[in-house]
Amino acid sequence: MPSSPDDPPALAFSTDNCTVGRSMTILGERWTFVVLREVFNGIRRFEDIRRHTGIPRQVLTNRLALLVEHDILRRTPYQPAGARQRHEYRLTPKGLDLYPIMVAVAQWGDRYLADPDGPPVEFVHRDCGTPAGPVMECAAGHRIADPRDVVPVPGPGARLLGDHS
Amino acid sequence: MPSSPDDPPALAFSTDNCTVGRSMTILGERWTFVVLREVFNGIRRFEDIRRHTGIPRQVLTNRLALLVEHDILRRTPYQPAGARQRHEYRLTPKGLDLYPIMVAVAQWGDRYLADPDGPPVEFVHRDCGTPAGPVMECAAGHRIADPRDVVPVPGPGARLLGDHS
Repeated sequence: MPSSPDDPPALAFSTDNCTVGRSMTILGERWTFVVLREVFNGIRRFEDIRRHTGIPRQVLTNRLALLVEHDILRRTPYQPAGARQRHEYRLTPKGLDLYPIMVAVAQWGDRYLADPDGPPVEFVHRDCGTPAGPVMECAAGHRIADPRDVVPVPGPGARLLGDHS
Repeated sequence: MPSSPDDPPALAFSTDNCTVGRSMTILGERWTFVVLREVFNGIRRFEDIRRHTGIPRQVLTNRLALLVEHDILRRTPYQPAGARQRHEYRLTPKGLDLYPIMVAVAQWGDRYLADPDGPPVEFVHRDCGTPAGPVMECAAGHRIADPRDVVPVPGPGARLLGDHS
């Protein structure tokens, strides 16, 4: 790849192993996140999710299968009284770890995309009831108010593009 | 909508004004987030983004237009020496506010989807160089370690499904 002196430094690194890209291969689809929202909100059964969201049946089937395949949801049996056994979907630890993303997405949407009457859902701390959300902090315990003070640096898996081409 | 006593409470509320769903209409597409990653990493020019990511030209054109339309990126002119005027893409304040989502997505991917040699990028605090990331906190200043201690409650814009049906 030709490079010039004013190229941004990040341009020299490969995107092959980018974990944002890999995450969004799983998550980067509207309905996937809507399904996760339902499960985080305790709506765990196929028919409930379908009715509540309006996701077409086949799309929902596919999204649930994808999330199970990636170990984000697990399928567990339940038996309604007098009916045959069915399944519901629960978050695995890997799925539960998506919660900071979910809350961050909700709060960005609340700020920029809510109706005039305000956000449909608020997130509160269970113990004290006050609003909860993500804040940025470093390992040394400094609170970081300005996102520009968080900087990306090459990690252990960084690959220069020259390594391949 | 028929309801039963063991219905999850969230099922009673409308998803029409869900801001997660609205956010993901813009963001919920792999390439959209990849474009944002590039711009957050200082790679702002069409040809640089295209070369670096391999996004097909027409897809990149569409994604950049979508992000400009939603006021997440703005197009600003620059003039390379001896060449005609071109444009680069910069984050607006609304775009910069996506940073906690980007970092949260990267960190989830680093935990579950990285290559054996580790994540390609790390995020550090500019001032002290230690790793930085999102932590959950409530307005009363309590640190929340377990995501299950953050609970969704109906917000000012919550709509019962019965309001419409």
